[in-house]
This record gives sequence, C-alpha cells and structure tokens, in this order.
Amino acid sequence: MFIANGDYSLLQGNYLFSEIAKRTAAFKANHPRAELIRMGIGDCTRPLVPAVVDAMHRAVDEMGDIATFRGYGPDFGYDFLREAILNRDYLKRGIRIDVDEIFVSDGAKCDVANISELFSKDCIVGIVDPVYPVYLDTNVMAGRSGRYDPKLRGYERIVYLPAVEQNGFVPDLPQVPVDVLYLCYPNNPTGQTLSKEQLKRFVDWANACGAVIIYDSAYEAYIRSVDIPHSIFEIDGAKTCAIEIRSMSKTAGFTGTRCSYSVVPRELVRKDSLNNTVSLHDLWARRMSTKFNGVSYITQVGAAAAYSDEGYAQLTGVVDFYMENARIIREGMERAGYTVYGGQNAPYVWIKAPHGDSWRFFNEILEGHHIIGTPGAGFGAAGEGYFRMTAFASRENTLAAMRRIGG
Amino acid sequence: MFIANGDYSLLQGNYLFSEIAKRTAAFKANHPRAELIRMGIGDCTRPLVPAVVDAMHRAVDEMGDIATFRGYGPDFGYDFLREAILNRDYLKRGIRIDVDEIFVSDGAKCDVANISELFSKDCIVGIVDPVYPVYLDTNVMAGRSGRYDPKLRGYERIVYLPAVEQNGFVPDLPQVPVDVLYLCYPNNPTGQTLSKEQLKRFVDWANACGAVIIYDSAYEAYIRSVDIPHSIFEIDGAKTCAIEIRSMSKTAGFTGTRCSYSVVPRELVRKDSLNNTVSLHDLWARRMSTKFNGVSYITQVGAAAAYSDEGYAQLTGVVDFYMENARIIREGMERAGYTVYGGQNAPYVWIKAPHGDSWRFFNEILEGHHIIGTPGAGFGAAGEGYFRMTAFASRENTLAAMRRIGG
Repeated sequence: MFIANGDYSLLQGNYLFSEIAKRTAAFKANHPRAELIRMGIGDCTRPLVPAVVDAMHRAVDEMGDIATFRGYGPDFGYDFLREAILNRDYLKRGIRIDVDEIFVSDGAKCDVANISELFSKDCIVGIVDPVYPVYLDTNVMAGRSGRYDPKLRGYERIVYLPAVEQNGFVPDLPQVPVDVLYLCYPNNPTGQTLSKEQLKRFVDWANACGAVIIYDSAYEAYIRSVDIPHSIFEIDGAKTCAIEIRSMSKTAGFTGTRCSYSVVPRELVRKDSLNNTVSLHDLWARRMSTKFNGVSYITQVGAAAAYSDEGYAQLTGVVDFYMENARIIREGMERAGYTVYGGQNAPYVWIKAPHGDSWRFFNEILEGHHIIGTPGAGFGAAGEGYFRMTAFASRENTLAAMRRIGG
Repeated sequence: MFIANGDYSLLQGNYLFSEIAKRTAAFKANHPRAELIRMGIGDCTRPLVPAVVDAMHRAVDEMGDIATFRGYGPDFGYDFLREAILNRDYLKRGIRIDVDEIFVSDGAKCDVANISELFSKDCIVGIVDPVYPVYLDTNVMAGRSGRYDPKLRGYERIVYLPAVEQNGFVPDLPQVPVDVLYLCYPNNPTGQTLSKEQLKRFVDWANACGAVIIYDSAYEAYIRSVDIPHSIFEIDGAKTCAIEIRSMSKTAGFTGTRCSYSVVPRELVRKDSLNNTVSLHDLWARRMSTKFNGVSYITQVGAAAAYSDEGYAQLTGVVDFYMENARIIREGMERAGYTVYGGQNAPYVWIKAPHGDSWRFFNEILEGHHIIGTPGAGFGAAGEGYFRMTAFASRENTLAAMRRIGG
C-alpha cells in the first residue's frame, strides 16, 4: 500500500503568493472595473533588454539549423555563461572562486528548495523571521520542522531569528544550536542589508560551530551603498561555511525566462549521517546531474548577453529605474504618514501597518486603494504588523499608487 | 554541527551518462583524430522545426516589448500549452482527463526525480531491470533503497522486476509487496512496448494492492503499431493508481530546450504517513508551487507550436526520420550477426553482447569502430549482456556506423 509523505500536511495554509492571488482574484470578480496596481509579488515589468533579445534570437536560429542545433547541454551550465558569471560577479569584485564552483539552474527558488536535499533530516534549521517562505516550507516538506505550534506561531524544531525594529532588522546570532541558517541580503521582505562586519559575525559563528549558511543574494544588484557586500564570499572564511544562491530574475528581468546559479565552494566539507567526510560541492554536483537536465540553451545565451558590457549597461538602467520607484514609494508612504523601512539598497519597502494587523492592512489597501501589497504576517510571525511593497511596477502605476494613498 | 544527507553515499559510481562522457573524453584525448559516432545518450540531432522556431522568435520579441513582456507565469504552465497538450495527446485519442491534471515542467527527468518527494520514506520501490537510472538513483538519494549488496548486484530494499529474453522483456507482476512501481513504455533501454492487456495487468495489480505506478511515456510518439497504448490513461482504472510523465525532448527535439509535463489525476488518493487522506494531485500542486517557478514563457510558446497542426506535421517527419534510423540499425546489426531487439516502436535498439559483458562490448565498439553506445549493465544487473544503440544520430552517421560494424 502506497503511503504518501505526511510532512506536506504539516504546512500551514497555502503558499503565500498563491493565497494573495486567490484573494486578488476574488476582489476582481466582485469589482470588475477596479484598476488594480500590483505591488505584491516581486515580479518585473520592464522588458528584456535589447542585448538579451538579440542574443536569444540568434540562439533560436541556431536551434533551428542542423549545423548549430544543441541537444542536452552540460549538466552544470555552458562554460560561456559560467565564465561570464565568474568574471563579472566575482573576479571583477576581487572575489576568487573557481568556474566549476558555479552551477547554473532554472531559478533561485528551485535552488533554495532543492539545496535542502543535501542536509540530513536531523539538521536544525534556522531562519530569519520575517523570511521568504520557501526556506521554511521546503524544510517542512522534508520533515525537518516538527509540528506547527499555533501558540508560538511557529514550528517546534525551527529556530527563528527575529529581525524587527528593536534590533534594526538585523537578527542576533542564534542562541541555541542551529546547523543550517538561511540568510537573504539585501533582504526580502524587509529591504535591509548587512554590513561586512555584521555578515562576518555570521560567518565566524558558522565556522565555529560547523553550521552551513545558505546565502540568498538574489537582490545584490540593487545595492547602492559602496560598503555593503554583494557576495558572502567577500567575507574571509565564507568558503568553509557558505553556499551562495543568485538569480537573474530581478537583475535581468528573467522572472518569466528562468535562470539562476549557485556557488558551492570546494572547501565546504562536512560529515554525513553515515560518518563519511563529504564535499557539499560534490553532493550538489551529483544532485544536479541526477535530478536536473540543465537550462534551455536559448535562455543561457540570453543570460550570458546580460553579462556582456552592452547588456550590463542596459540592465543597470533597468535596476536604476526600479530603484527610483523604490524612492517614490518610500518618500510617498512617509508623506502619507507611515513609518517606512528598506527601499534604499533593495527593491522592497517595508511599511509599518498602523494598527499592527498586516492582513487587515492588506485588505484595506486592496479595498480602499485597489493596490496589492504583501502582508508581513505571510513572511512569519515577526512580520506581523508590517506590509511589503515592491518597486517592480511601472513608473505610472507607482506614482498612481502613491497618489491614491495620499503620498 | 551540520550533517549532510548520508543517503547520497549509497549511490554506486557515477550517473551512467556522466561515466560514459568521461570514458569518451579519455578516448578522444588519446585518439584526437578519431571520428566518433554518438549512439549512446538519447540526444536529438535534428533541429527544432520551423513552426517552433517561428513561435519562439515571436515570444522573444514579446519579451522585449513592455506591452507584451511576461514575468512569472502560472505555477503549472500557461493554459495555452496545457490545453494544446490536453487536446492532442489525450482528447484526440479518446482519453478524458482535465486540463488542471496537467503540470508543465522543465524536463521529464526532473519530474521523474521530484515525484518521489510525494512518497513516504518507507515506501517499497519497484523498478524494471534494466531501467533508466534516474528512477533508482533518486530513491537511493532519498533513503528508500537500503544499502547496495554487491552479491545481489542490487539494493536491499528495492524490488527488481527483470525484463529479459526469457520473459520477452515484459516483467512479471511483483511477487512481493511493492508500493510504487516505475514503468517506462515504450521502454528505455530495451525498446519494448506493452500491449493494452499487459498494461491492464499492472493497473489491476496496483488498484488491488494500493500501489502507485509512475508511468514514463516519454517515447510514446515513436509507437508505430496501432494497438499499443500511448498513455496509461487508455487503461480503465489507471486514474486511481497512476501518474504519467511525458517529455517534449524526444518528440519535439527539446533535449536542449527543456519542456515536459506530468498528469496527476484527481482520483489518485491515498493515506499519508500521518494517516491523513491526501490527493496526490494536491501534493504535486503544492510541490510545484513551492519548489518550482514554471518554465520559460519562450519555451512554452515553442512547445505549444509543436502541438499546432503545422508543428505536429513537421515533427511527425522528424520522428519518422529517427525511426528510419532505428530500422537501419536493427537490420544492420542483424546483418552483422548480432541478436537484436527493439527499434520498432521505440528509438532504442537493444543488442545482445556476444560474450555477455556489456562494458567490454562498449569498449570494443568504441575502440574498434569509434562508435559510442550504452552498456546494458549501466541500466541494471539484468541489462548485463546487452548494449543500447539509439536512433538519434544523423542518417549519414547511422549508415556509417553500420558500415563500420559490417552491417
């Protein structure tokens, strides 16, 4: 008799953005004429830049010609893309990694989710609260969470590190044992960053206790301040404790085109549950070659074009565009009387809900102003009382949203 | 202290095709002038058809235009593609399924691998032997296999169903309890098919004992005989016991473009390990929305074009082309004195290695004729003594290979 994985039943409610989509659809059904402005999900609205479009056309033509057609690609990505990533994202910033430490995949969400297959089931998982829900949900589905405790508004075996006003949205180091810690900076949803000194504390902690840090730097392109690290590998000691996950989604408008990569250093070595000494690089390589078949050649050619000088210059303009939206939201919401965080080195603005109830604020903003944001409570118990707005709408809609709200 | 998943260390050697790639690279390094003919991995060589190329160009242009740009797509695929799949692959064959039972993904290998997340860890897995290695390896990595026993040439907790000359390469029903059974028809690697009556026996067995069948029909487009089922859902009772996985890789030349789909019927309901009654459709939907972010819009537009009347007609020509290669291989190898199976309803020809050692035969064919095939032992203990050749090479190379071998 087939028995299904019971850990899925420990998940609380639906995946956040699916829930928001449902509520939005219900509102639209009741208010068919409402002109909704979407500032909820972090989804790009600017088109692919010309350098990427041109490259993808060339790749499509190659795929249609028997002389240049490509079948299965290399398991870990084409070298032309891995080398482009290496050069621009690492070597140009003075960070030394090897090209074979880069694994190209079809999305940071997938990598963030799949990386947990490398952890033993008993690993204690630590997450910042509030947090991108995928870190938590994928560990619940893999049996690492224990049961949800409604009183604690959290899972028994998950260690939550609150990032709240009182600590300037910078979590303290874990005070109890944590084996694997997810960090996302620039942060989704709070829009905060870590300085090199703050990040170094986490790296030193991980090396001291043998923990592994999963570092999600999907939003690094949005950093404006020169002293904020773009990569955890800018920090001494990170190669023995960290895996970095990056995305083309927000840097190149690839939310619907799908490309990302992870860096798993060769120096990252631990024991496994059978007491073998194992390289996490080799485990990830094995996972990728066994359970994945690479990213579309056409997509990889487009991604590589985003790293060319021409493409990069065009994309800098796109990122600047969104960051101007972030400024408009930040200043608009402040003028409307709200307390506002983030939006200076990240495309997310984190707004204090006046009465402390974030789903109520979500409904008020939806019904009163026809604007969709994301309720902070959807990101964890410590997100209650906040509301996330994203800078990815059009300029027109961003300005219109602020006018509607009174900013 | 982080502890890694020890189940990975129970894997035997490298993933088959990585191992073949390594041996091939070593041969090439030693024989730089050898003109290798690749008939090992089942990788297409015909280009994308014009209807697909044209559609992808249009999609690339849409992505480059702010008016038509698309960000995140629907979690389970665009309706235009799901409906195209529904109509051509199911309704036109008289098979009734619902469009929301179709989940679009970036590869059948990924789906075959990821589907095992829905099984409880204790499920007993049955596989046909020989078999596509991903069914086995992914269950080893998830802790369902027990240890490898070199004497048995198999894992302690895996139930192997031999498909060998003695049973006409059609496995008998399991004689011991099996909770989830992987079937692939037309079969990789043996090139065999199941009749409706043979498949019905498996469906009835699964319904009687509560097992689930993972039915991989990636090669259904290669079926020539009219009485062979293309889908397990042609069989009465399959909706309460089966999940079907399909691929665009071999039907539309998408090995490097990446698109596939799975059908998980709503009627497929079981208990989970916490004794809840659960729908596997809902579990898979939850997995897809939490751990995956959809397939590239451009790819989905191309896939839908492959289902258009124009695209389908073009692709029928491609499949016919490969099947003519299969005929050339089958007849050529027979003329050269080998015993040959398959290749009549599948792009794989399964050749008996004269001395019974398949890696030795691999080396002989590589070194003697500069042809790469796949040793049967790589597909399991019962594959020992056989050698797989694929029909995906060019006509010129297929003919040249037969001349070299003496067929």
